[in-house]
Amino acid sequence: MKNPLKTIRETKPLIHHITNWVTIYDCANMTRAFGALPVMAHAPEECADMTGISSALVLNIGTLTSEIIDAMIISATAANEKKIPVVLDAVGVGATKFRDEMAAKLLGSVHIDIIKGNYSEIAKLAGESAETKGVEATSINADPEKIAKEFAKSTSSIVVMTGKEDIISDGKRTFIVKNGHEQMGLIVGTGCMAASVIGLFASVNSDYCEASRDALCYFGIAGELAAKKSNGPGSFKVNLYDEVFNLSDEKAKSMMNFEEQ
Amino acid sequence: MKNPLKTIRETKPLIHHITNWVTIYDCANMTRAFGALPVMAHAPEECADMTGISSALVLNIGTLTSEIIDAMIISATAANEKKIPVVLDAVGVGATKFRDEMAAKLLGSVHIDIIKGNYSEIAKLAGESAETKGVEATSINADPEKIAKEFAKSTSSIVVMTGKEDIISDGKRTFIVKNGHEQMGLIVGTGCMAASVIGLFASVNSDYCEASRDALCYFGIAGELAAKKSNGPGSFKVNLYDEVFNLSDEKAKSMMNFEEQ
Amino acid sequence: MKNPLKTIRETKPLIHHITNWVTIYDCANMTRAFGALPVMAHAPEECADMTGISSALVLNIGTLTSEIIDAMIISATAANEKKIPVVLDAVGVGATKFRDEMAAKLLGSVHIDIIKGNYSEIAKLAGESAETKGVEATSINADPEKIAKEFAKSTSSIVVMTGKEDIISDGKRTFIVKNGHEQMGLIVGTGCMAASVIGLFASVNSDYCEASRDALCYFGIAGELAAKKSNGPGSFKVNLYDEVFNLSDEKAKSMMNFEEQ
Repeated sequence: MKNPLKTIRETKPLIHHITNWVTIYDCANMTRAFGALPVMAHAPEECADMTGISSALVLNIGTLTSEIIDAMIISATAANEKKIPVVLDAVGVGATKFRDEMAAKLLGSVHIDIIKGNYSEIAKLAGESAETKGVEATSINADPEKIAKEFAKSTSSIVVMTGKEDIISDGKRTFIVKNGHEQMGLIVGTGCMAASVIGLFASVNSDYCEASRDALCYFGIAGELAAKKSNGPGSFKVNLYDEVFNLSDEKAKSMMNFEEQ
Repeated sequence: MKNPLKTIRETKPLIHHITNWVTIYDCANMTRAFGALPVMAHAPEECADMTGISSALVLNIGTLTSEIIDAMIISATAANEKKIPVVLDAVGVGATKFRDEMAAKLLGSVHIDIIKGNYSEIAKLAGESAETKGVEATSINADPEKIAKEFAKSTSSIVVMTGKEDIISDGKRTFIVKNGHEQMGLIVGTGCMAASVIGLFASVNSDYCEASRDALCYFGIAGELAAKKSNGPGSFKVNLYDEVFNLSDEKAKSMMNFEEQ
Repeated sequence: MKNPLKTIRETKPLIHHITNWVTIYDCANMTRAFGALPVMAHAPEECADMTGISSALVLNIGTLTSEIIDAMIISATAANEKKIPVVLDAVGVGATKFRDEMAAKLLGSVHIDIIKGNYSEIAKLAGESAETKGVEATSINADPEKIAKEFAKSTSSIVVMTGKEDIISDGKRTFIVKNGHEQMGLIVGTGCMAASVIGLFASVNSDYCEASRDALCYFGIAGELAAKKSNGPGSFKVNLYDEVFNLSDEKAKSMMNFEEQ
């Protein structure tokens, strides 16, 4: 897609989130900074209706409960029917048995178009042995690109593994995104925000693999620009929002750094 | 009222919120920046007691559930008995049937002293045809000032319609507030914060129509001052808090921009 | 302990929080800024497992419900068995009967290693007559140092009373911490963040009395440094994060300001 950011800003897609209570504000505010409109609604009585007027659904299990998982299934079912993209951020999979079971329940009940997690979360979802230190990635024993590719094939989903380099695969194409900055890991929530950004890029680009790649490139570029001006995590976060807001497709295209394999 | 901000800072009213999970921190922190004290409590076992020691109650249905609506009714009943102002921010009315029903339930169960929403939310509450794009206003077919005035009459409430210009009516007097800056719409939560600010101004001024007008003028002025120094939504939000904190009644009076109709 | 901050940054302890919905992000992000890893999980099905992989448990009753208290008891029981420190921030005790009862239920069900609150919250917990203005301290009639010392003895806990000066006692030793800055009281959440900081210092130092003292000194020093550069609560908060991130044990040692009594 030629100018995804311009398209987002012109069409202002509504992005429905059912997310965690830690980073819910930043998921909303980052969606707004990119030019889209966020809405958060988790009541079972209304969540399908809210999905019904939205252009993408972003799910995040960071502070899941069984009730929230039920709401996610209701909304994702509505999203599947409406054929809008569903993004799942598999936060903390591998940390507890309950989280693994609930993630499996989600994947077994609805189609997730884009499954995102860090290296160990995706490895665990894909059936590899992996543990998560809370919501942080730990080392995995297998080749991450192979995991992404094969898990994408078996689920017919786009798989996004985030880390120092991000891996994105649809089972055929695999992109390695090298944009981003280590300061993004020094604040809580950049991973959650990245899932929102993927959701809003996918809402305007039916090639979800390319949309996910572009989302992580653009967001990573804003992180690179913000890092140059920052003295720590406080100022970095302020600058991250300003850089996203001031980003253009032209600027982003000149800084995109990825490989296709 | 001559010096509302000075009065707030001297008396430090306690403002009880039952609000949404997206902007709950900013509702609390903006209350604090103005010099009042926020408290958030939604457990049905304690919410009436918390209202009982407070000077205003602010309700926001941004992420409502049926349980939260029940808690709001308990607290608003206590507020009505205590004769402290109740503010309702009707976030997202028009977006889903459930939200419309729950807002109607609230309005039918307790007296709301100040009903706030964007143009389409208030139009919908008032029985006009209007739709909401999630929590964003869309165009309405009717004259907004007429809606505000008539809805205020029929509910015996102050009606606050926020938009590029804010309309405030008690059915007789109608104020048009022109303070504010478009950058306020570029971050999530300024609408929710505005409801908190209305609550704290109403806690020290029994003329709720004037209090709502002053609240939106003062908050809008802080937004105008912050916008001058900002490079995007990150720095704007930081500056908004600083400008609110450093605002004085004298400064605000010199910049207030409203008409009475 | 010689270099607590260096130890935290090298070992990156996982700090499990069951906390309130207002400041949950800041509890997480401040944990991260100090170099530790936060995780938030409150589902009863997983909270014990999450505690089981953590190095400290931080509980905060700021927006408690009976369900959340049950989850706290499950997790604190797991923490007691694992012998990792449990911190309780007794937010709002004294404001409502329900809050007092739930705090008593917690203290009666599990061992809390470090009980933290402002002067009136701790006085109330200790059985003195005290009221809380929402979540703000009010004056108390008794000698706070005596309360801290005797309450520590009767509970076999470390008691932390925060205020203009912080009092920390294990029943034998009593520290008075004079670091900190009044601007810390102008933003919402510094009290909650302080409980997180105590949790992460206690996770690497089995002398919880010394750990609590160091935590409040270090956090207060960052507040002092941030205040010098700030124009209001917006910029103060940004600078607070930057100063925490850039703090070193050497710098902190040179600025620590406490007395032992």
